[in-house]
Amino acid sequence: MMTASSRDLPDCEIFDSLTPPQRRDVLELMEPKAFEPGAVILEEGRQTRGLWVISQGRCEVVKIGGNGSGRVLAELGPGSVFGEMSFFQTASHSASVRCVTDVRTLHLSSENYARLEETSVRAALRISHVIAVVLAERLRRMDEWTTRLLDEAPPSKHEEWSDFRAKLYNELGF
Amino acid sequence: MMTASSRDLPDCEIFDSLTPPQRRDVLELMEPKAFEPGAVILEEGRQTRGLWVISQGRCEVVKIGGNGSGRVLAELGPGSVFGEMSFFQTASHSASVRCVTDVRTLHLSSENYARLEETSVRAALRISHVIAVVLAERLRRMDEWTTRLLDEAPPSKHEEWSDFRAKLYNELGF
Repeated sequence: MMTASSRDLPDCEIFDSLTPPQRRDVLELMEPKAFEPGAVILEEGRQTRGLWVISQGRCEVVKIGGNGSGRVLAELGPGSVFGEMSFFQTASHSASVRCVTDVRTLHLSSENYARLEETSVRAALRISHVIAVVLAERLRRMDEWTTRLLDEAPPSKHEEWSDFRAKLYNELGF
Repeated sequence: MMTASSRDLPDCEIFDSLTPPQRRDVLELMEPKAFEPGAVILEEGRQTRGLWVISQGRCEVVKIGGNGSGRVLAELGPGSVFGEMSFFQTASHSASVRCVTDVRTLHLSSENYARLEETSVRAALRISHVIAVVLAERLRRMDEWTTRLLDEAPPSKHEEWSDFRAKLYNELGF
């Protein structure tokens, strides 16, 4: 496999969190991949486990609605990371990632992350911490946003939210 | 400090994910703490970093509303974990955790987690993975729930949600 070198490296918190030797260990296990405009890197509903960092170009996160048309959720550029929602467990992608321009990425497969755990466990730990921090912060913000939205909703919705949230924090996972 | 032993151990995915030697390493760094009914273990708005596992008794997660009254978000029992939202970074607790009964907990401080990184880095990695998986799954479910809720809301709200979500996945963290 071709490996990535430091010169491909965009500004990205994952790389920033690593020491230079750790960064080299990670880069040795990341595969550079190039895509053309319109190419779908991650496909909604499919289960693949890998972490992607965009080094050049732009992608959009698209969700296919009930009528088959795509709704753009977000745009991603150099340094953006995707795949983190299903990197540590198998889960269907909730949206697709499609290239808007020519795109270059660095890809860390879950198999190579497992290798990283053997060759440079502290680098693996740093990556895992960065992902956990990002997920916690997003969850916190979404919880606040939805709670504010519910303040304006009818009381029946409050109860639904409260039941949902109790389940979410209580039954899920641990 | 008193340390915890295997007999204090409730069913909990964090412990389940560890090998027996890793579990011993983690337990050596977890401090058993006991609380009386009404005691507040985590206080909304405060910043403390630690992971708590309930071994006996029940707690409630309470959010203080604008009028000063508490709203119970969830109930936690043996095996429940809390503190995971701000374990890898400093952040204010978004709710309080208050004891309903006599409660026994095991507490892993962030200082002791840092020690674990030195003494048993693979145990630290497992804990970090379990937390990331739980956070990702909650985020996914909350995203789905809020999207469904928004389907019934006025179009202006759709746009607000779409802007918010674009920011959340695009700008936040990486």
